[in-house]
Amino acid sequence: MERQHISAAFDAELHDLRQRILTMGGLVEVMIADAIKALVERDTPLAEKVIALDHQVNGHEVAIDEKCLELLARRQPAARDLRFITLALKIVTDLERIGDQCANLGKRVREINTEPPLKPYIDIPRMAHWASVMVKESLDAFVRGDDELAIKVCQDDQMVDDLNQQIQRELYTYMLEDPSTISRAMKLTYISKSIERIADHATNIAEMVIFMVKGKDIRHTIA
Amino acid sequence: MERQHISAAFDAELHDLRQRILTMGGLVEVMIADAIKALVERDTPLAEKVIALDHQVNGHEVAIDEKCLELLARRQPAARDLRFITLALKIVTDLERIGDQCANLGKRVREINTEPPLKPYIDIPRMAHWASVMVKESLDAFVRGDDELAIKVCQDDQMVDDLNQQIQRELYTYMLEDPSTISRAMKLTYISKSIERIADHATNIAEMVIFMVKGKDIRHTIA
Repeated sequence: MERQHISAAFDAELHDLRQRILTMGGLVEVMIADAIKALVERDTPLAEKVIALDHQVNGHEVAIDEKCLELLARRQPAARDLRFITLALKIVTDLERIGDQCANLGKRVREINTEPPLKPYIDIPRMAHWASVMVKESLDAFVRGDDELAIKVCQDDQMVDDLNQQIQRELYTYMLEDPSTISRAMKLTYISKSIERIADHATNIAEMVIFMVKGKDIRHTIA
Repeated sequence: MERQHISAAFDAELHDLRQRILTMGGLVEVMIADAIKALVERDTPLAEKVIALDHQVNGHEVAIDEKCLELLARRQPAARDLRFITLALKIVTDLERIGDQCANLGKRVREINTEPPLKPYIDIPRMAHWASVMVKESLDAFVRGDDELAIKVCQDDQMVDDLNQQIQRELYTYMLEDPSTISRAMKLTYISKSIERIADHATNIAEMVIFMVKGKDIRHTIA
């Protein structure tokens, strides 16, 4: 009975940890969407808001790290729970760096909004949408231990890479044809690259989830 | 006596963990140096070698991750040791991504070596040298728990960022003056960016070390 009680309390703590990570993920998803909205609608105050939110993301990281350490110290988990908590420690680092990339996006958008628009943005918002979906799905895969969803995220990364390549090629053509566009085209190159890095972080998370789910044999030797 | 025996065995395991991380760090330092040597000396086989080494880096990551999990499960460490091991888990992720960046450098160098050289490379090797020193010092700071060295690493990042800015500006001037250089200049832009990202990873490691060393009060509430 006592054991069940401890176990239920621990489950509640793990549930809380999952929720915190999803909350942090929800925050960076909003930041991605808002950074791109600030670009498309030339809304510099919104870009400033994204930059400011990075501070909150960092706060989440510190709090989740501490929660994980506390659980490791107090609960001394084995096997599956141990792997889950140590993975949470790694995942928050990726989420924090996605927050950094969103802040970078905000800064670039702020710069580019002071210059005349180069072209209507179509592929960049598409790419950002996919990157955001990848972030969401990688975290869903983590909290559910769903390796099939994690594999899908890894596969989707190719789509984002292809879009990035296509955007880079198009911007290169602009630069070749009219050197007066080089400055703006370079900034858009950086924006595209930042989105690609966000998708890379989601892929990293997904890869670690696959390892967590598939690494059963390894976990068994530890426990 | 028994307790001392266990403690000595655990210390030996922690020492082994430190050594493994330094070995992994030494490998990525060689990769950085070789990638730049391959660029400066237009040595494509050396670039191929760097690309191939990424596999070894990944192997180190998996082995160190497993070692950390095993230590957490078997030793159930508290306070300082717990923080050290969980930090090791985070640091190997950064080292693995530095390895990825080195492989990216190798791929770019392989491409650029097929085109006529744009200019003598002076700032890029300087920047890579600093990034490599930062990687080395961030790991030294980690294994020694030396927060002063970690602070130095964070400060040095500004120097690498400045060099990157300077290189980007110079390449931008090339592109403006002669559109036939755009393709090569863009590739050098990516190379410079990759080196900057390596320095960012070293800075991330150093920041986590500062938190590990300075976070004494927090550790005490956990133990």
